[in-house]
Amino acid sequence: MSPSIIREILKVTERPGIISLAGGLPAPDTFPVQAMRDASERVLRDNPREALQYASSEGFAPLREWVAAELAGQGMKVDSSQVLITSGSQQGLDLVGKVLIDAACTVAIESPTYLGALQAFTPFEPEFVTVPCDQDGPLIEKLSVAKGARFLYMLPNFQNPSGRCVSAARRVELVRAAREMGLPIVEDNPYGDLWFDAAPPPALASQWPEGTVYLGSFSKVLAPGMRLGYVVAPADLTPKLLQAKQAADLHTPGFNQRIVHEVIRDGFLRKHVPSIRALYKTHRDAMQQALTRHMPAGCRWNAPSGGMFFWLEGPPSLDAVALLPKAVEAGMAFVPGSAFFADHPQKNTLRLSFVTVSPDKIERGIELLGKVLREMVG
Amino acid sequence: MSPSIIREILKVTERPGIISLAGGLPAPDTFPVQAMRDASERVLRDNPREALQYASSEGFAPLREWVAAELAGQGMKVDSSQVLITSGSQQGLDLVGKVLIDAACTVAIESPTYLGALQAFTPFEPEFVTVPCDQDGPLIEKLSVAKGARFLYMLPNFQNPSGRCVSAARRVELVRAAREMGLPIVEDNPYGDLWFDAAPPPALASQWPEGTVYLGSFSKVLAPGMRLGYVVAPADLTPKLLQAKQAADLHTPGFNQRIVHEVIRDGFLRKHVPSIRALYKTHRDAMQQALTRHMPAGCRWNAPSGGMFFWLEGPPSLDAVALLPKAVEAGMAFVPGSAFFADHPQKNTLRLSFVTVSPDKIERGIELLGKVLREMVG
Repeated sequence: MSPSIIREILKVTERPGIISLAGGLPAPDTFPVQAMRDASERVLRDNPREALQYASSEGFAPLREWVAAELAGQGMKVDSSQVLITSGSQQGLDLVGKVLIDAACTVAIESPTYLGALQAFTPFEPEFVTVPCDQDGPLIEKLSVAKGARFLYMLPNFQNPSGRCVSAARRVELVRAAREMGLPIVEDNPYGDLWFDAAPPPALASQWPEGTVYLGSFSKVLAPGMRLGYVVAPADLTPKLLQAKQAADLHTPGFNQRIVHEVIRDGFLRKHVPSIRALYKTHRDAMQQALTRHMPAGCRWNAPSGGMFFWLEGPPSLDAVALLPKAVEAGMAFVPGSAFFADHPQKNTLRLSFVTVSPDKIERGIELLGKVLREMVG
Repeated sequence: MSPSIIREILKVTERPGIISLAGGLPAPDTFPVQAMRDASERVLRDNPREALQYASSEGFAPLREWVAAELAGQGMKVDSSQVLITSGSQQGLDLVGKVLIDAACTVAIESPTYLGALQAFTPFEPEFVTVPCDQDGPLIEKLSVAKGARFLYMLPNFQNPSGRCVSAARRVELVRAAREMGLPIVEDNPYGDLWFDAAPPPALASQWPEGTVYLGSFSKVLAPGMRLGYVVAPADLTPKLLQAKQAADLHTPGFNQRIVHEVIRDGFLRKHVPSIRALYKTHRDAMQQALTRHMPAGCRWNAPSGGMFFWLEGPPSLDAVALLPKAVEAGMAFVPGSAFFADHPQKNTLRLSFVTVSPDKIERGIELLGKVLREMVG
């Protein structure tokens, strides 16, 4: 395994005074602290022994039922027996890798794709094959490169890092083509709730439940520090994922599962998530305006319609990895786009998070980025 | 991967009315509920944003420092940079497997050994080689079977499942032989603090720090539902374990790490752990007396001097797997010993936990076990 770029960068961002647009950290203002305090207190008052004891590998039954009901409301057919609670959806990727990947088998990915998934899958030694993408996601006419792959890994909603959201029409075509090829889909959806104007189209899993493994997370709608996510898999895969989960860490903390269930059980997210959307939309607008103001000619980006990231394409001569130390020296940080490719990285790209710091700092950070970009590309 | 015996048995033990001596569940009376409540409240009052945000993969720095200081007090030379916080020590086993095991390499184990370690290592497809053991642990003169293995996995203190504690003399011989062979040791120590009369001899890691990976846990001295453990590795291995940790779940919940650190920072365990030892000793005595009263001739066991388990050897004709459904029907449960062997299981053995249920129920459970045992072996 190779050293982790994200980890090294997160270290840099701990330096005081750096405006970090690098990490994908949710805005801490959105954490429902009081609700968490109340819920923690109730859990340790009413069920301390159960919360602090070993628990089942599947997860806390009422939380699994909540997830199944929530996804049913979004058009997916899910039985709670198919829901496995994980330690963040990152662990879902690890378990999927452990169960589905053998050394030298092929795994198909988008271009670009989530770095954490590459890191989760790599220890199982797959060959990655990249499906060429446009701004609407994987190109159907290129999907044949994924023939024979164990699965296609996708983030259809406000992708990390590109911010793109696959259209309803492309989803239909994609599922039809994947189904015809017998290509299972691993659908990662940490950002789907963070839409600004309209909810994204239905999940791929709602169209092809028996061919799709679906990953969800509470990190972006509640708080990542609780490390709670879930995997929903076709019924025949569930026992294998469960075994991998048990071997990995026995179970996700029952304490955390009960607290989160206590917070969300009575519809809390129906009020809470819209407040996150509203906040992030103002941040998105701030970054859009700042980029318009400060980026030199030759830079391109799309304002995302949800999620947490802008994806910036600089002039062809730009090497974003070489730009990073200069940016940090100037006082800001980003993630070079090349981290998000398994091969043939687009070296002139970079990922900018708009949710962690205030609109003021976004403006200042982008101004600094514009300055070092101009100095570098002349 | 094959179905999990422990998981199936834990399901049985959820049935009301069954006296379960199967699961390795700490007595819930020992959970420091009030201290956890106070600590949770303080963490969410004083540092909510940090506790609920993404955090570093290494773990919460003050907790890593606490672990290093604690182990230094036990004679190990540990720098906090070598301490990686994990989601229970089970995750430590998974990470060790991911980093150290390649398909078809050899991993040496004790006979019997911890089932959860076999489960954690198996997905990485090693060949297990069993080092023959006596009541004092691995036999030095047989250690040559482990030649060329990636590591020897050991629980020197009050082993799960056998309850045995390796003597000081055997430890010295073992480390000397392993070092000569170039055989690294993975030392798993979840039970070392649970001694009844005298602390166990120093850790193997204290004698050979550069050749030993050491795993510890807060599950048995505080509460397993927090899922907190740690790995201490030689400095050259630490970056690889850290990468595997990041890929597995990004990090262990910062919320939980801060709560546990808040509970233990001012010496809480120095008062708390002795109360667990005292309680478990009365349970150990209750089981010893019950076994003496109710076991038929031909059964052998050693009263453990710490930990959580008795290891019972029945008459050679006994098949403990076949006995289990009869025992459950009668109203008690245990784990058949064969689950704890990679090959050549001793079918006439069984593991009995003495810490989860009350001395009254231990007496009743062992009485029921004696009854079904007598019926089976005549």
